[in-house]
Amino acid sequence: IIRKKTFAEVQTERLEQAERTILIKCPSKLNENKLLQYLSSHGNIQSHFLFENHGIHALIEFSEKNSIASLQDAIGIPSAVERHVVPFKSRLFTFMLKNPVSQAAEGTPVHLSPQSHIPVKDLIQKLCHADSISSQMYILLNEYQLTEENIRLRFLACSLVRDFARAYFPDSVVRPFGSSVNTFGKLGCDVDMFLDFHDTQKSATKMKKGPFEMEYQMKRLPSERLANQKILSVIGDCLDNFGPGCVSVQKILNARCPLVKFSHQPTGFQCDLSVSNSIAIKSSELLYIYGSLDSRVRALVFSVRCWARIHGLTNSAPGAWITNFSLTMMVMFFLQKRSPPIIPTLDQLKVLADDKDMHVIGGYDCSFVSDLSKIKPTENTETLDVLLGEFFEYFGNFDFRKNSINLRKGKEVNKPESSPLYIWNPFEQDLNISKNVNQPQLEKFVAMARETAWILQKEDKTQRMINKEPWGLAVLLIPFGKSNHSKMKNKVKGIGSETIRSLLESLKLNSASSLQKAVEK
Amino acid sequence: IIRKKTFAEVQTERLEQAERTILIKCPSKLNENKLLQYLSSHGNIQSHFLFENHGIHALIEFSEKNSIASLQDAIGIPSAVERHVVPFKSRLFTFMLKNPVSQAAEGTPVHLSPQSHIPVKDLIQKLCHADSISSQMYILLNEYQLTEENIRLRFLACSLVRDFARAYFPDSVVRPFGSSVNTFGKLGCDVDMFLDFHDTQKSATKMKKGPFEMEYQMKRLPSERLANQKILSVIGDCLDNFGPGCVSVQKILNARCPLVKFSHQPTGFQCDLSVSNSIAIKSSELLYIYGSLDSRVRALVFSVRCWARIHGLTNSAPGAWITNFSLTMMVMFFLQKRSPPIIPTLDQLKVLADDKDMHVIGGYDCSFVSDLSKIKPTENTETLDVLLGEFFEYFGNFDFRKNSINLRKGKEVNKPESSPLYIWNPFEQDLNISKNVNQPQLEKFVAMARETAWILQKEDKTQRMINKEPWGLAVLLIPFGKSNHSKMKNKVKGIGSETIRSLLESLKLNSASSLQKAVEK
Repeated sequence: IIRKKTFAEVQTERLEQAERTILIKCPSKLNENKLLQYLSSHGNIQSHFLFENHGIHALIEFSEKNSIASLQDAIGIPSAVERHVVPFKSRLFTFMLKNPVSQAAEGTPVHLSPQSHIPVKDLIQKLCHADSISSQMYILLNEYQLTEENIRLRFLACSLVRDFARAYFPDSVVRPFGSSVNTFGKLGCDVDMFLDFHDTQKSATKMKKGPFEMEYQMKRLPSERLANQKILSVIGDCLDNFGPGCVSVQKILNARCPLVKFSHQPTGFQCDLSVSNSIAIKSSELLYIYGSLDSRVRALVFSVRCWARIHGLTNSAPGAWITNFSLTMMVMFFLQKRSPPIIPTLDQLKVLADDKDMHVIGGYDCSFVSDLSKIKPTENTETLDVLLGEFFEYFGNFDFRKNSINLRKGKEVNKPESSPLYIWNPFEQDLNISKNVNQPQLEKFVAMARETAWILQKEDKTQRMINKEPWGLAVLLIPFGKSNHSKMKNKVKGIGSETIRSLLESLKLNSASSLQKAVEK
Repeated sequence: IIRKKTFAEVQTERLEQAERTILIKCPSKLNENKLLQYLSSHGNIQSHFLFENHGIHALIEFSEKNSIASLQDAIGIPSAVERHVVPFKSRLFTFMLKNPVSQAAEGTPVHLSPQSHIPVKDLIQKLCHADSISSQMYILLNEYQLTEENIRLRFLACSLVRDFARAYFPDSVVRPFGSSVNTFGKLGCDVDMFLDFHDTQKSATKMKKGPFEMEYQMKRLPSERLANQKILSVIGDCLDNFGPGCVSVQKILNARCPLVKFSHQPTGFQCDLSVSNSIAIKSSELLYIYGSLDSRVRALVFSVRCWARIHGLTNSAPGAWITNFSLTMMVMFFLQKRSPPIIPTLDQLKVLADDKDMHVIGGYDCSFVSDLSKIKPTENTETLDVLLGEFFEYFGNFDFRKNSINLRKGKEVNKPESSPLYIWNPFEQDLNISKNVNQPQLEKFVAMARETAWILQKEDKTQRMINKEPWGLAVLLIPFGKSNHSKMKNKVKGIGSETIRSLLESLKLNSASSLQKAVEK
């Protein structure tokens, strides 16, 4: 048995790997071997892949970091016609053919790693060929989850931004957090990253020898927030003015968490850079643990999120919508509530924590076990077919009016205040992570969950497969009342007016009026 | 005979020296030896000095650059009470006593190198004890010129700014130019510095191997000016936000030569940072050559400039005043016109240039000899007593209406346009370096030169020394019509009304009206 790596180990490995990595823009017709041969004079290439992003790009991982220095020394800055360049030397290069016409002929077909997921239409086609809802959910997971290559590209983006920060703060690190690292990221999601001065601050011991001490002269500011704002502002300007392919740089410095948004063209990511956010990284680690414990966890989350998006319950724009993070937490809570539970509560994870897992950040207890092998595997053997239906039934029946969702305890707790949807922030226990959700959005979610539960119960898989109609998960990913399949369109239309009544019956609610009560404040 | 170093050699040496140098803020009571002992564990100290600048500071030159890295590793960032610092690690440190009260007692008297010149009042006192005007002029030169220590501090300021630029442009250098290096700088003058990407651009050779080439991806901009503006803007922000003691940062990016002004508190200098200014450095080198050829050159320039400042002919604020640079060029021109000449013309210096001295910058020929030993020493043996008087007489009589001053040819040339004062830019030959000077300012200069020439001729040194009155150069440094010496006040006042008439006579002009003509357009 290979021990599963801790979150911190994975992060450290990937950050180090990204430091040995470069990105090369290539001509459209390329002989991959010749490129590798060309580069190998600077060092051994550990791994590489090609991808399409407004032209072909190659990500190259050298075995040794100093191979990059050797390459950088040998390479020139663009000259000749377009000579007004900002001579900032990054790890982004352009590879050209001296004689494009004749050399293009030598180009060989190359394998391009996809960096975006397939369209929903194509996904639905694929799902129809599966033999169970479980299989469908794993297909969806495989199509949507971040690939090894995409994760490398995300860490490279962070590492390239680190080069900017390191210019002034040599010990600083830019770390990805959130969906890029918590195992729940979807291809195409933003890269959240933060600038970590942690190492710098650790070394705050003054040089004391004999009766003297000595320290750096440094700019002093009245608050840490102001210091962070100034640092982010300057780094934002550096990215904007010096960073090749860093465009649409936006400083949002007066937000609760000051950040710089920018589009990083070479990797194709939309990035959000903030400063030291230790609790955010603990949240990422917690989800990493939940996502790694049991394969059903991620499959269920991806399916539920895809369903929510298609039915307009989530939205990438800010607003009263349920966020993907809240939705993921709701799935986690559901999985904690199964009997036997599929994942442990946060309190249980805290009991397993050892000394080095103890972290108190800003007065909040963020301690939980980091070693996955210490967590006993679940004895629950329910299939994803069952779990999907039960998820919708569980939240279709949840008493949101009275109860809040608490992952630390793994049980419903009386709402501490009147927000329509209350999900405890797992670490900052005085915060509701779904404070933004309003009553209409919550009602929409509950109604949709009930309709979905009803559809899953009614499903006649065999009949639908014979009719070559979408079935199972595929049905849930077509907006109800619409269909891209003419036969299904008729059937789904038939549901229309009867939906709510049947739904209520199927959910065995005591009275029709309880639907309203369940979601009202 | 020790060969005099070329300008480039001096610059390179001093820049390298500055890279091995740090600056430490010390307690007011200091045991110098204990500080040195404390530091010596990181490497051999090549030289050091102490100076006062809002507290005692020590400049320390290590023998090896890596001693600084060793020291930096051992030193912490300020912590405890005032914790919100921008953790940028520079070469500026604070040295503290752990037990200030008892340790202060161990403080020993320290020698402080002066970083500013003595007040004019004190200078005049000193001049009165000299035995000739020549001696007076050398005393003034010695009191006002940059000291070895002050020059080191200037190069250190550049080197510290270089650390900011180097963060993004590792091959860049920040070079001082103008008065800091041209041998004509006065204690207290601003530090003009520019960011030089020269080395970066030299390496613009692409990596070409086989049929491929590779280059950096870089931000492209429509003009070099725009690139420079953006780079200066970001570096200005970095200085402002990260640089300890960098205050009052002002970006003046829309000027003909975009620049960032800032006050550098640790060294006490007012700094102007611009981007690559190759012609400015050639001007500095030309003045360096003139200043190094003959000791009388700098003595005359310093005396004339001090005289001009006291009589309100120059001013540090921008305006229609004659600049120090113009005034210096007028002295150079005067020295070219002596018979035999004291310094060669620029055309003569060009004839002596060898292949490596050939420089054409922006289409302008900036070639002249760099090796001082190739220039034949002057045969002129006139004393400074004579030269000072002759200078004022020469420019009192100069036909500014008709003639311009051309240092390249070393002779009067018909004015190419109607500016009141026309001094050819030695390299950009289509520019007048004194275009800013208006007719009233020029008339004031001419009148003052004539009055001064007259005073020098009338001087009775012996009588004045017996009377313990200011004499010689000292008289010229007291505003005419004023005096801080009661006896002299009476005498000088006596001159008043008769001044112009007597002056005209002494200058043997053909008619009184020629004074006006000489300065009119």
